[in-house]
Amino acid sequence: MNTSGSQTPVPAVSSVLVDDIAVLVTNDPGLGDGVLGEVPDAALVVENGRVAWCGPRTQAPAADVRVDAAGRCVVPGFVDSHSHIVFAGDRSREFTARMSGRPYEAGGIRTTVAATRAASETELLGNATRLLREARAQGTTTLEVKSGYGLSAADEERALRVASRLTEERTFLGAHVVPPEYDGDPGGYVDLVTGAMLDACAPHARWIDVFCERGAFDEEQARRVLEAGRRRGLAPRVHGNQLGPGPGVRLAVEAGAASVDHCTHLTADDVAALADSAAEGRATVATLLPGVDFSTRQPYPDARALLDAGARVALASDCNPGSCFSSSMALCIALAVREMGMSPEEALRAATAGGAAALRRDDVGHLAAGARADMVLLEAPNPLYLAYRPGVPQVAAVWKDGELVAGRP
Amino acid sequence: MNTSGSQTPVPAVSSVLVDDIAVLVTNDPGLGDGVLGEVPDAALVVENGRVAWCGPRTQAPAADVRVDAAGRCVVPGFVDSHSHIVFAGDRSREFTARMSGRPYEAGGIRTTVAATRAASETELLGNATRLLREARAQGTTTLEVKSGYGLSAADEERALRVASRLTEERTFLGAHVVPPEYDGDPGGYVDLVTGAMLDACAPHARWIDVFCERGAFDEEQARRVLEAGRRRGLAPRVHGNQLGPGPGVRLAVEAGAASVDHCTHLTADDVAALADSAAEGRATVATLLPGVDFSTRQPYPDARALLDAGARVALASDCNPGSCFSSSMALCIALAVREMGMSPEEALRAATAGGAAALRRDDVGHLAAGARADMVLLEAPNPLYLAYRPGVPQVAAVWKDGELVAGRP
Ligand SMILES: [Zn+2]
Ligand SMILES: [Zn+2]
Repeated sequence: MNTSGSQTPVPAVSSVLVDDIAVLVTNDPGLGDGVLGEVPDAALVVENGRVAWCGPRTQAPAADVRVDAAGRCVVPGFVDSHSHIVFAGDRSREFTARMSGRPYEAGGIRTTVAATRAASETELLGNATRLLREARAQGTTTLEVKSGYGLSAADEERALRVASRLTEERTFLGAHVVPPEYDGDPGGYVDLVTGAMLDACAPHARWIDVFCERGAFDEEQARRVLEAGRRRGLAPRVHGNQLGPGPGVRLAVEAGAASVDHCTHLTADDVAALADSAAEGRATVATLLPGVDFSTRQPYPDARALLDAGARVALASDCNPGSCFSSSMALCIALAVREMGMSPEEALRAATAGGAAALRRDDVGHLAAGARADMVLLEAPNPLYLAYRPGVPQVAAVWKDGELVAGRP
Repeated sequence: MNTSGSQTPVPAVSSVLVDDIAVLVTNDPGLGDGVLGEVPDAALVVENGRVAWCGPRTQAPAADVRVDAAGRCVVPGFVDSHSHIVFAGDRSREFTARMSGRPYEAGGIRTTVAATRAASETELLGNATRLLREARAQGTTTLEVKSGYGLSAADEERALRVASRLTEERTFLGAHVVPPEYDGDPGGYVDLVTGAMLDACAPHARWIDVFCERGAFDEEQARRVLEAGRRRGLAPRVHGNQLGPGPGVRLAVEAGAASVDHCTHLTADDVAALADSAAEGRATVATLLPGVDFSTRQPYPDARALLDAGARVALASDCNPGSCFSSSMALCIALAVREMGMSPEEALRAATAGGAAALRRDDVGHLAAGARADMVLLEAPNPLYLAYRPGVPQVAAVWKDGELVAGRP
């Protein structure tokens, strides 16, 4: 654990004590209070990149090095389970036209597809690396990254190769939109996605995803995509119910998907299906993306109804150049509290443990002993401040696997 | 101008060229395009803390030192014309209860009044200095600061003395709320505010302000406060029309106030009065505080109607521990675009030149020759990114009077 962030070589240490934590959010209700498992006046010990111990500071074991949280709050690193950061091009003028109600020629995903195809791999890696660093500096320690702006076998494979330099959570999203060369032939494009494109991409991805929405892929096409992916060892996830009611949630639950993302327009049956999947211990997580609803001026999903029904909820950024060019998980939390009926505690849990569930990970999103030491020191006395102080950068330091990756304590 | 931010002594330099600016926002339509007076491929020269020259980089004069904007965007520093950062105490739990619809005992401004009175001057200065630094790091180069949590002659004077360490834009807001010791006797409290309290505070302030709203001070009381202030050389500003329609705007225009702040509930007559004041060259600025509406889940003001009528509009944070504990002007811009019908350009103008007008300042809020060199280098290619990337910290460097005060180029 590099505790200084300086250029000086730091001797290897076997244990680090993070001390004087005003509130430690463990996300383990067995360890502390409320849904966040909050431990007041806490300390935490890191060994070999993992949490070795956490609890009341008066009971802390000895360690080789001490980091002073100085009465601030420590939370698990954000788990952002949905992003599209491998791309090129700029759509700020399209955003401006949309928000001003002005028409805009040639907007949409295809603008990004053309720019991404035209960019060099070096440029794509540079763009994505900048966005990953920006996300880390804001407290994101696990970031899922999708392909989906290549839409040819070579370009999708290239996007996933770029993503492989950045994260283990890579998702093949060839079925993002039908590219221009398949206009009028979505079936032919699905053949490609489930054939040669999947052959090229499967070795580089963990997940397969499909945009199951009117104007993108219908239920039958989406099912074909997920089944082809599963045969190649890719686990399913779904974009659905963003623009209107539709089959996305039903399909995701049927396929045992880890997550169905957007969930803005849900029927009572959709909510019940998500809740049932959670009750049966194979939760399809409802991943809500409020930054998209913010940046497209669409209604927000009803997180309260999902939570009250017993569904599992995650918050993610959907960081992408079109519908939401924000990597801020803190903004997602603030919007979830303002607009979606979540409490500040529920929103933070959804942005950490919720994201981990949406990626079927048990090593991140919480800070009990054994978990990865992915954690954020906030410039705040308690975790409510993430919602209480919207827009204000409050991340003092970020550790991933026990290494300081942004800021300084 | 310290261009390095390092500890090494920097020799005094007589001129600095900020070069390779992708877009320079001057806020002077005579110098460039659109409401922001945007100059593409620009440069800017600073001498003695002022803008000595700006324009196309190919025409830039020589200077002693060069700062490389490297294809990024430079905008005027934000002018945040409304804040309440001199206080003590924490209201994060009250915020959480409010947003969750739960009752909360003993909330409200009086909580902060009690904590502020109990705090030492050192503690108040420490808290306010932290918030000022935080605002600066987010691009705010001019910050108005109000008293209003003391509510006794000594405590209000103390708050303004603390503010005098931080800013020239100080506002006496003894008429914030009636304190407990005057329960049932608002007239008696107004006697104090316009008497001994004003005597103690007038030497430390430029402005006088009053919260003219049901539950605070009525039109007649508010008029008394503003007139007493004017007799002591304090220029008027008003909190009004936040929680419902009321006399605040009418009174502000009648008094020739520089600004009336909140303006959430306006009648057609209010809008017309504000527009008339602007047309007559003595604008009472409508200062909108969307962070408050965000953090109290209230409706947003209709900025579009104000702009279309010809009224002058500013955006400000209202940073305070109760109704909006955010110092983020970028959040105000994003909310103004999402919720209030402003374009990204109009919102940025309102957060810079608009704030300057609300403080009747012509030396800040723009970057033409002669203006103070208060400026922000954004980690973005154009100023639309402030709205296009909500929640993302995009401030690379901040200069005030030509001195680097946050970040680094
Ligand atoms: Zn997406
Ligand atoms: Zn205020």
